[in-house]
Amino acid sequence: MTVTVAIDCMGGDHGPVVTVPAALDFLHKREDAEVILVGDEKSIRQYLKGVGHPRLRIRHASEVVGMDESPALAIRNKKDSSMRVAIDLVKSGEADACVSAGNTGALMAISRFVLKMLPGIERPAICAVLPTMSGHVHVLDLGANVDCSHEHLLQFGIMGASLVGAVEHKDRPSVGILNIGEEDIKGNEVVKLAAEQLKTSGLNFVGNIEGDGIYKGEADVVVCDGFVGNVALKTSEGLAQMLATFLREEFGRNLLTRVAGLLALPILKHFKQRVDHRRYNGACLLGLKGVVVKSHGSADAFAFCHALERAADTVRNNVLTRIVERIPVLENA
Amino acid sequence: MTVTVAIDCMGGDHGPVVTVPAALDFLHKREDAEVILVGDEKSIRQYLKGVGHPRLRIRHASEVVGMDESPALAIRNKKDSSMRVAIDLVKSGEADACVSAGNTGALMAISRFVLKMLPGIERPAICAVLPTMSGHVHVLDLGANVDCSHEHLLQFGIMGASLVGAVEHKDRPSVGILNIGEEDIKGNEVVKLAAEQLKTSGLNFVGNIEGDGIYKGEADVVVCDGFVGNVALKTSEGLAQMLATFLREEFGRNLLTRVAGLLALPILKHFKQRVDHRRYNGACLLGLKGVVVKSHGSADAFAFCHALERAADTVRNNVLTRIVERIPVLENA
Repeated sequence: MTVTVAIDCMGGDHGPVVTVPAALDFLHKREDAEVILVGDEKSIRQYLKGVGHPRLRIRHASEVVGMDESPALAIRNKKDSSMRVAIDLVKSGEADACVSAGNTGALMAISRFVLKMLPGIERPAICAVLPTMSGHVHVLDLGANVDCSHEHLLQFGIMGASLVGAVEHKDRPSVGILNIGEEDIKGNEVVKLAAEQLKTSGLNFVGNIEGDGIYKGEADVVVCDGFVGNVALKTSEGLAQMLATFLREEFGRNLLTRVAGLLALPILKHFKQRVDHRRYNGACLLGLKGVVVKSHGSADAFAFCHALERAADTVRNNVLTRIVERIPVLENA
Repeated sequence: MTVTVAIDCMGGDHGPVVTVPAALDFLHKREDAEVILVGDEKSIRQYLKGVGHPRLRIRHASEVVGMDESPALAIRNKKDSSMRVAIDLVKSGEADACVSAGNTGALMAISRFVLKMLPGIERPAICAVLPTMSGHVHVLDLGANVDCSHEHLLQFGIMGASLVGAVEHKDRPSVGILNIGEEDIKGNEVVKLAAEQLKTSGLNFVGNIEGDGIYKGEADVVVCDGFVGNVALKTSEGLAQMLATFLREEFGRNLLTRVAGLLALPILKHFKQRVDHRRYNGACLLGLKGVVVKSHGSADAFAFCHALERAADTVRNNVLTRIVERIPVLENA
């Protein structure tokens, strides 16, 4: 079976200069994949530099959704935007998944408008992968839902567990809830109620996880309110950037430290590779009737290619079917 | 003027083995300071190892508040605990500040019960200092208040600005609110309302700060809900631990990497020093009629000494008076 990925080539901070080479890399890596490059045909051809590929097609789209554009206006006014056309291709079945590095709010809104939500799910949740001491963890929601009810948190648990179960072939992935203490009595009312529901949900619920537990790998899936999740993610990005800057500064301090830095270079490179956020690029918008993956806006070709691979894996492992199968659990909840 | 600090010697993961040597270091560093060591006299004397000090007194307390003990029970049943007696010393005026590495919930509850809140403030907020690209930032609340109203967030802004203004002699410290986007329309209702109030508060309000903005140093003070703040802090701790572990692992991989590690050791040490969380130990419980500083439970003597210094600085710079002076602003809000 072939997996066809529709790529919003114009989205993100860089557009086709990043998305087109990433698409070619992706085709090279995944022989089961086809891509549809969506966007301004002239720009796309420019970055293809005359290279063709039997598993590559171009679909022209005349508009682009701006990074700061209002989602509502994007739905109403940008019907021929690269983002909209890519999502339409998923709706029509021509593509199995869509990947965009564009405006997150618009991607969520258009996806929801075009593809609709799975029954029992109210809004998409953004689910990303982060590295941990012992492997990695899926965290959701990372910013789609700023005010979550306990039912939403339960839904996140079910969707996250379905995703990890499908993609990593784990029978009963562990699910934790992000909280400010390990004891049952901690946290706000919504989190306490959600924890009670998760306990009886049939999921492999491991209870409260504190912020540091995310990176300790205390659960396969960590659920949280989109506000809290977004803060945790961005705070991590900021801290990692600061530490990287300080490390560079220390090694660049003088001739002696630069020599030591040269000697340590292979080690530092290996370290960097191990925690390279680009390898974790590509967050799934879960709960939609279709596979939509959001790449970081500033992704380079290496990172964007990872988002394409994540989309292909999500399709390949029937994540949507797995979520739908778990939906009766939601109705009984 | 002498600053007298009452030290809960029994609190924290380690008790007097850490708190007593830290107290001696503190006395050595700060000639304007006196300490009252509160706790089991026999244990304290054991760790003093016969060393006396003209600016050191011992106040025996027969009980200890357990790290997992319920705050309500600690108030009711542990009237001769080291924590309670240390706070009582602040109430009676015998000490200017109290420092404890013990149970946070109990410390908050007992402080509030004994010292009472400043007029117009409902609950204490935990305010800690974090390093940034360009210096450091004060963040509050870090876990005292799990459900904040917009009025609470405004109060945090005023208290945080008063603290920074006093301790760092800044006239108009900048205040930001933690949010999930820089635009005004982002975030939940409470945060939006709080941002509106902060705008007209007379503070030097710089608007929304995203998680990464904390470490970029985008404001002197960042206010947030205690749930969000606690998650941000603990997530940072977890990430920093993971990165440190990975770095150690990479340098310990084989003989060659170990040699490179030896050469890079002074650089890595300097790097570590720069971001050493122990130097940032000591969070102020703001809003009380008295200075109470919470040390990390697992603090070592170096870190605990920093918490003692923070307490002395808070007293020395009249932070309470500064907060009280700003309170009319609260009443008009």
